Amino acid sequence: MKTYTTLLFAGLLATIGAVQAAEPENYIKYRQAVMKAIGGHMGASTQVVRGKVPEDAQLRLHAQALADLNADLTRLFPEGSDFGETKAKEAVWDDPAKFEQAANAAQDATAAFAAAVAGGDSAKIAAAHKKVGQSCKGCHKDFRQKDD
Amino acid sequence: MKTYTTLLFAGLLATIGAVQAAEPENYIKYRQAVMKAIGGHMGASTQVVRGKVPEDAQLRLHAQALADLNADLTRLFPEGSDFGETKAKEAVWDDPAKFEQAANAAQDATAAFAAAVAGGDSAKIAAAHKKVGQSCKGCHKDFRQKDD
Repeated sequence: MKTYTTLLFAGLLATIGAVQAAEPENYIKYRQAVMKAIGGHMGASTQVVRGKVPEDAQLRLHAQALADLNADLTRLFPEGSDFGETKAKEAVWDDPAKFEQAANAAQDATAAFAAAVAGGDSAKIAAAHKKVGQSCKGCHKDFRQKDD
Repeated sequence: MKTYTTLLFAGLLATIGAVQAAEPENYIKYRQAVMKAIGGHMGASTQVVRGKVPEDAQLRLHAQALADLNADLTRLFPEGSDFGETKAKEAVWDDPAKFEQAANAAQDATAAFAAAVAGGDSAKIAAAHKKVGQSCKGCHKDFRQKDD
Protein backbone atom coordinates (compact mmCIF):
# COMPACT_ATOMS: atom_id res chain seq x y z
CA MET A 1 0.00 0.00 0.00
CA LYS A 2 2.83 2.33 0.90
CA THR A 3 4.50 1.63 -2.45
CA TYR A 4 1.26 2.36 -4.31
CA THR A 5 0.80 5.66 -2.46
CA THR A 6 4.38 6.64 -3.17
CA LEU A 7 4.01 5.83 -6.85
CA LEU A 8 0.76 7.76 -7.01
CA PHE A 9 2.38 10.75 -5.33
CA ALA A 10 5.37 10.59 -7.66
CA GLY A 11 3.00 10.45 -10.62
CA LEU A 12 1.08 13.43 -9.31
CA LEU A 13 4.26 15.45 -8.88
CA ALA A 14 5.36 14.54 -12.40
CA THR A 15 1.99 15.69 -13.75
CA ILE A 16 2.15 18.99 -11.89
CA GLY A 17 5.72 19.44 -13.09
CA ALA A 18 4.67 18.86 -16.70
CA VAL A 19 1.83 21.39 -16.47
CA GLN A 20 4.06 23.97 -14.84
CA ALA A 21 6.80 23.44 -17.41
CA ALA A 22 4.38 23.64 -20.34
CA GLU A 23 2.70 26.84 -19.33
CA PRO A 24 5.55 29.34 -19.78
CA GLU A 25 6.34 27.83 -23.18
CA ASN A 26 2.73 28.25 -24.25
CA TYR A 27 2.80 31.82 -23.04
CA ILE A 28 5.82 32.47 -25.24
CA LYS A 29 3.81 31.29 -28.25
CA TYR A 30 0.76 33.25 -27.21
CA ARG A 31 2.62 36.49 -26.62
CA GLN A 32 4.51 36.15 -29.90
CA ALA A 33 1.17 35.77 -31.67
CA VAL A 34 -0.16 38.84 -29.84
CA MET A 35 2.97 40.82 -30.76
CA LYS A 36 2.57 39.70 -34.37
CA ALA A 37 -1.01 40.95 -34.35
CA ILE A 38 0.15 44.23 -32.79
CA GLY A 39 2.83 44.58 -35.47
CA GLY A 40 0.27 43.91 -38.19
CA HIS A 41 -2.25 46.42 -36.87
CA MET A 42 0.49 49.00 -36.37
CA GLY A 43 1.84 48.51 -39.90
CA ALA A 44 -1.68 48.76 -41.33
CA SER A 45 -2.39 51.88 -39.26
CA THR A 46 0.79 53.50 -40.54
CA GLN A 47 -0.30 53.03 -44.16
CA VAL A 48 -3.70 54.58 -43.42
CA VAL A 49 -2.48 57.45 -41.23
CA ARG A 50 0.10 58.44 -43.88
CA GLY A 51 -2.60 58.42 -46.54
CA LYS A 52 -0.97 55.62 -48.51
CA VAL A 53 -4.12 53.53 -48.87
CA PRO A 54 -7.76 54.64 -48.86
CA GLU A 55 -8.64 52.39 -45.94
CA ASP A 56 -9.77 55.03 -43.46
CA ALA A 57 -12.81 52.95 -42.62
CA GLN A 58 -10.47 50.29 -41.21
CA LEU A 59 -8.52 52.62 -38.92
CA ARG A 60 -10.95 52.28 -36.02
CA LEU A 61 -10.60 48.49 -36.13
CA HIS A 62 -6.80 48.66 -36.16
CA ALA A 63 -6.63 51.30 -33.42
CA GLN A 64 -9.08 49.47 -31.15
CA ALA A 65 -7.24 46.18 -31.63
CA LEU A 66 -3.96 47.92 -30.75
CA ALA A 67 -5.52 49.30 -27.57
CA ASP A 68 -7.06 45.94 -26.61
CA LEU A 69 -3.90 43.95 -27.34
CA ASN A 70 -1.67 46.36 -25.44
CA ALA A 71 -3.79 46.34 -22.29
CA ASP A 72 -1.99 44.63 -19.40
CA LEU A 73 0.90 43.33 -21.52
CA THR A 74 3.01 42.26 -18.54
CA ARG A 75 0.74 39.24 -17.88
CA LEU A 76 2.14 37.73 -21.10
CA PHE A 77 5.57 37.44 -19.47
CA PRO A 78 5.00 35.05 -16.54
CA GLU A 79 7.90 33.88 -14.44
CA GLY A 80 9.75 31.14 -16.27
CA SER A 81 8.87 32.24 -19.81
CA ASP A 82 12.40 33.51 -20.37
CA PHE A 83 13.85 30.48 -22.10
CA GLY A 84 13.76 28.92 -25.56
CA GLU A 85 12.47 30.64 -28.63
CA THR A 86 12.00 34.11 -27.23
CA LYS A 87 13.59 37.46 -27.96
CA ALA A 88 12.51 38.81 -24.58
CA LYS A 89 15.55 40.02 -22.65
CA GLU A 90 16.23 38.95 -19.09
CA ALA A 91 15.62 42.58 -18.12
CA VAL A 92 11.87 41.81 -18.32
CA TRP A 93 12.20 39.69 -15.18
CA ASP A 94 15.26 41.41 -13.69
CA ASP A 95 13.73 44.87 -13.66
CA PRO A 96 9.96 44.33 -13.49
CA ALA A 97 9.24 47.88 -12.34
CA LYS A 98 10.94 49.40 -15.39
CA PHE A 99 9.30 46.82 -17.66
CA GLU A 100 5.88 47.60 -16.25
CA GLN A 101 6.49 51.30 -16.84
CA ALA A 102 7.36 50.63 -20.50
CA ALA A 103 4.35 48.33 -20.93
CA ASN A 104 2.08 50.93 -19.35
CA ALA A 105 3.41 53.53 -21.79
CA ALA A 106 2.32 51.28 -24.68
CA GLN A 107 -1.08 50.75 -23.05
CA ASP A 108 -1.58 54.50 -22.58
CA ALA A 109 -0.34 55.41 -26.07
CA THR A 110 -2.58 52.88 -27.82
CA ALA A 111 -5.62 53.91 -25.73
CA ALA A 112 -4.94 57.54 -26.69
CA PHE A 113 -4.60 56.55 -30.35
CA ALA A 114 -7.95 54.74 -30.30
CA ALA A 115 -9.53 57.79 -28.67
CA ALA A 116 -7.98 60.09 -31.29
CA VAL A 117 -9.27 57.90 -34.13
CA ALA A 118 -12.74 57.94 -32.57
CA GLY A 119 -12.45 61.73 -32.40
CA GLY A 120 -11.64 62.01 -36.09
CA ASP A 121 -9.14 64.90 -36.04
CA SER A 122 -6.38 64.03 -38.55
CA ALA A 123 -3.63 66.00 -36.81
CA LYS A 124 -4.42 64.45 -33.43
CA ILE A 125 -4.61 60.99 -35.02
CA ALA A 126 -1.17 61.44 -36.60
CA ALA A 127 0.34 62.72 -33.34
CA ALA A 128 -1.17 59.87 -31.33
CA HIS A 129 0.00 57.33 -33.92
CA LYS A 130 3.54 58.63 -33.63
CA LYS A 131 3.45 58.17 -29.86
CA VAL A 132 2.34 54.57 -30.30
CA GLY A 133 5.40 53.96 -32.47
CA GLN A 134 7.62 55.56 -29.85
CA SER A 135 6.15 53.41 -27.09
CA CYS A 136 6.78 50.24 -29.14
CA LYS A 137 10.38 51.26 -29.75
CA GLY A 138 10.84 52.39 -26.16
CA CYS A 139 9.92 48.99 -24.80
CA HIS A 140 11.69 46.93 -27.47
CA LYS A 141 14.93 48.88 -27.01
CA ASP A 142 15.37 47.72 -23.42
CA PHE A 143 13.40 44.49 -23.32
CA ARG A 144 13.60 42.80 -26.71
CA GLN A 145 16.61 41.45 -28.54
CA LYS A 146 17.11 42.78 -32.03
CA ASP A 147 16.11 40.66 -35.01
CA ASP A 148 19.01 38.75 -36.56
CA MET B 1 2.15 80.79 -72.44
CA LYS B 2 1.79 77.68 -74.51
CA THR B 3 5.09 76.35 -73.18
CA TYR B 4 3.99 77.04 -69.61
CA THR B 5 0.71 75.23 -70.12
CA THR B 6 2.50 72.29 -71.72
CA LEU B 7 4.96 72.08 -68.82
CA LEU B 8 2.14 72.33 -66.32
CA PHE B 9 0.25 69.58 -68.08
CA ALA B 10 3.33 67.38 -68.26
CA GLY B 11 3.90 67.96 -64.55
CA LEU B 12 0.31 67.06 -63.79
CA LEU B 13 0.57 63.84 -65.78
CA ALA B 14 3.80 62.97 -63.97
CA THR B 15 2.09 63.55 -60.64
CA ILE B 16 -0.89 61.41 -61.56
CA GLY B 17 1.49 58.74 -62.83
CA ALA B 18 3.41 58.75 -59.54
CA VAL B 19 0.23 58.42 -57.50
CA GLN B 20 -1.07 55.61 -59.68
CA ALA B 21 2.26 53.79 -59.56
CA ALA B 22 2.56 54.17 -55.80
CA GLU B 23 -0.86 52.88 -54.91
CA PRO B 24 -0.46 49.15 -55.73
CA GLU B 25 2.85 49.11 -53.85
CA ASN B 26 1.20 50.65 -50.83
CA TYR B 27 -1.56 48.08 -51.03
CA ILE B 28 1.05 45.34 -50.93
CA LYS B 29 2.38 46.78 -47.67
CA TYR B 30 -1.11 47.26 -46.29
CA ARG B 31 -2.31 43.77 -47.12
CA GLN B 32 0.89 42.21 -45.74
CA ALA B 33 0.25 44.09 -42.49
CA VAL B 34 -3.37 42.88 -42.47
CA MET B 35 -2.22 39.29 -43.14
CA LYS B 36 0.32 39.62 -40.33
CA ALA B 37 -2.44 40.72 -37.98
CA ILE B 38 -4.62 37.83 -39.16
CA GLY B 39 -1.75 35.41 -38.54
CA GLY B 40 -1.22 36.83 -35.07
CA HIS B 41 -4.87 36.63 -34.09
CA MET B 42 -5.13 33.11 -35.51
CA GLY B 43 -2.03 31.94 -33.64
CA ALA B 44 -3.32 33.49 -30.43
CA SER B 45 -6.76 31.92 -30.94
CA THR B 46 -5.17 28.53 -31.43
CA GLN B 47 -3.39 28.74 -28.08
CA VAL B 48 -6.64 29.68 -26.34
CA VAL B 49 -8.91 27.19 -28.13
CA ARG B 50 -6.48 24.35 -27.35
CA GLY B 51 -6.46 25.35 -23.70
CA LYS B 52 -2.73 26.16 -23.73
CA VAL B 53 -3.08 29.54 -22.05
CA PRO B 54 -5.79 30.81 -19.69
CA GLU B 55 -6.67 33.72 -21.96
CA ASP B 56 -10.30 32.86 -22.66
CA ALA B 57 -11.29 36.45 -21.99
CA GLN B 58 -9.24 37.46 -25.05
CA LEU B 59 -10.84 35.00 -27.47
CA ARG B 60 -13.70 37.31 -28.40
CA LEU B 61 -11.22 40.04 -29.33
CA HIS B 62 -9.16 37.69 -31.50
CA ALA B 63 -12.21 36.13 -33.17
CA GLN B 64 -13.85 39.48 -33.90
CA ALA B 65 -10.60 40.87 -35.33
CA LEU B 66 -10.28 37.80 -37.56
CA ALA B 67 -13.83 38.32 -38.84
CA ASP B 68 -13.29 42.05 -39.41
CA LEU B 69 -9.92 41.61 -41.12
CA ASN B 70 -11.17 38.83 -43.39
CA ALA B 71 -14.20 40.75 -44.62
CA ASP B 72 -13.88 41.70 -48.29
CA LEU B 73 -10.25 40.55 -48.62
CA THR B 74 -10.17 40.80 -52.41
CA ARG B 75 -10.06 44.63 -52.24
CA LEU B 76 -6.51 44.28 -50.88
CA PHE B 77 -5.38 42.88 -54.23
CA PRO B 78 -6.01 45.71 -56.69
CA GLU B 79 -4.92 45.38 -60.29
CA GLY B 80 -1.18 46.04 -60.54
CA SER B 81 -0.27 44.93 -57.01
CA ASP B 82 1.30 41.75 -58.34
CA PHE B 83 4.90 42.86 -58.51
CA GLY B 84 7.80 43.38 -56.12
CA GLU B 85 7.84 42.13 -52.57
CA THR B 86 4.73 40.02 -52.60
CA LYS B 87 4.08 36.30 -52.23
CA ALA B 88 0.72 36.61 -53.98
CA LYS B 89 0.61 34.33 -57.00
CA GLU B 90 -0.47 35.53 -60.42
CA ALA B 91 -3.51 33.27 -60.02
CA VAL B 92 -5.04 36.02 -57.84
CA TRP B 93 -5.44 38.15 -60.93
CA ASP B 94 -5.61 35.36 -63.52
CA ASP B 95 -8.50 33.56 -61.89
CA PRO B 96 -10.40 36.23 -59.96
CA ALA B 97 -13.57 34.12 -59.65
CA LYS B 98 -11.72 31.29 -57.92
CA PHE B 99 -9.81 33.76 -55.77
CA GLU B 100 -13.01 35.46 -54.70
CA GLN B 101 -14.48 32.10 -53.78
CA ALA B 102 -11.46 31.29 -51.58
CA ALA B 103 -11.56 34.76 -50.00
CA ASN B 104 -15.28 34.40 -49.34
CA ALA B 105 -14.63 31.06 -47.63
CA ALA B 106 -12.25 32.82 -45.23
CA GLN B 107 -14.80 35.58 -44.65
CA ASP B 108 -17.55 33.05 -43.90
CA ALA B 109 -15.36 30.85 -41.69
CA THR B 110 -14.12 33.76 -39.57
CA ALA B 111 -17.64 35.17 -39.20
CA ALA B 112 -18.83 31.74 -38.06
CA PHE B 113 -15.92 31.51 -35.61
CA ALA B 114 -16.78 34.90 -34.10
CA ALA B 115 -20.40 33.79 -33.78
CA ALA B 116 -19.36 30.51 -32.12
CA VAL B 117 -17.14 32.36 -29.63
CA ALA B 118 -20.03 34.70 -28.82
CA GLY B 119 -22.21 31.60 -28.28
CA GLY B 120 -19.72 30.12 -25.81
CA ASP B 121 -20.05 26.40 -26.68
CA SER B 122 -16.53 24.92 -26.51
CA ALA B 123 -17.13 22.15 -29.04
CA LYS B 124 -18.64 24.56 -31.57
CA ILE B 125 -15.79 27.02 -31.00
CA ALA B 126 -13.19 24.31 -31.65
CA ALA B 127 -15.00 23.14 -34.81
CA ALA B 128 -15.36 26.70 -36.13
CA HIS B 129 -11.70 27.42 -35.35
CA LYS B 130 -10.63 24.40 -37.35
CA LYS B 131 -12.62 25.63 -40.33
CA VAL B 132 -10.88 29.01 -40.14
CA GLY B 133 -7.51 27.23 -40.35
CA GLN B 134 -8.74 25.24 -43.34
CA SER B 135 -9.92 28.39 -45.12
CA CYS B 136 -6.51 30.05 -44.57
CA LYS B 137 -4.72 27.02 -45.99
CA GLY B 138 -7.24 26.64 -48.80
CA CYS B 139 -6.57 30.14 -50.08
CA HIS B 140 -2.80 30.13 -49.46
CA LYS B 141 -2.38 26.82 -51.28
CA ASP B 142 -3.56 28.24 -54.60
CA PHE B 143 -2.84 31.94 -54.24
CA ARG B 144 0.25 32.42 -52.08
CA GLN B 145 3.80 31.31 -52.70
CA LYS B 146 5.32 29.19 -49.97
CA ASP B 147 7.75 30.78 -47.52
CA ASP B 148 11.39 30.24 -48.41
